Amino acid sequence: MDPYVSIITLGSPDVAATRRFYVDGLGWAPIMEVPDEVVFLQVGHGVALALWRAEALAEDRGRPVGAMADAPVAVAHNVGRAEEVAEVIAAAEAAGGTVVKPAAPAFFGGVQGYFADPDGFCWEVAWNPGWHVSADGTVSLAGPPPG
Amino acid sequence: MDPYVSIITLGSPDVAATRRFYVDGLGWAPIMEVPDEVVFLQVGHGVALALWRAEALAEDRGRPVGAMADAPVAVAHNVGRAEEVAEVIAAAEAAGGTVVKPAAPAFFGGVQGYFADPDGFCWEVAWNPGWHVSADGTVSLAGPPPG
Repeated sequence: MDPYVSIITLGSPDVAATRRFYVDGLGWAPIMEVPDEVVFLQVGHGVALALWRAEALAEDRGRPVGAMADAPVAVAHNVGRAEEVAEVIAAAEAAGGTVVKPAAPAFFGGVQGYFADPDGFCWEVAWNPGWHVSADGTVSLAGPPPG
Repeated sequence: MDPYVSIITLGSPDVAATRRFYVDGLGWAPIMEVPDEVVFLQVGHGVALALWRAEALAEDRGRPVGAMADAPVAVAHNVGRAEEVAEVIAAAEAAGGTVVKPAAPAFFGGVQGYFADPDGFCWEVAWNPGWHVSADGTVSLAGPPPG
């Protein structure tokens, strides 16, 4: 199995409300959508985010879905400048998101914070000076600072 | 906020065990790791998967983590041939994963199935004839079949 992810799927109890945050609030353009059922957004080179009716995800995989707020999953959005962390979190809040952790110095030597989408799904926003993406997409990441 | 994801983070109760599945089982090479704490794997152009100690994720975001098995989140791994769906699910099972749904015709007109990693995180494996990624990484996706 080659190491790649094509789609990140979030099960939403109210796709129209989740769509308002990402599409109307953040201004992300859908690739394809079926009203009240699913919305696909591009979130990287060859990667989509799917906002899918939670019950449909549960039925499709044959496994129930619980609450999003305590899901042990998050995604990170890494930015290029330290100040951008607070700017992005403010933009997410203005779009209808919730600030989970304001921008602050991070244990890894940069700056980070978290916001949640309307369903409680957590996004980390981080400036990590050890994170680097080459032109060909290769990621490199320095280890944590000593001590 | 630009539409992109840098890292997909999974909170694991036992990072060494989760690492065995992805690194020893599937053969994915870590970008960087701190034993029993975190493992980073590349899973796309500019995208990493982080297997992070669940308690550390909870502390970092200031929000507790629940069970992975019912998290309303999944990722999809789209393949190029219908037969590849069963092959990938078999490889995941051989690596220590659990078959959640065997390969079968999908509602979207292709073939799909699901497996779970040792923590219960769900991967969909799909051949979707409507999914296309251009050389520049742009995703296009045809709508569902009529009827």
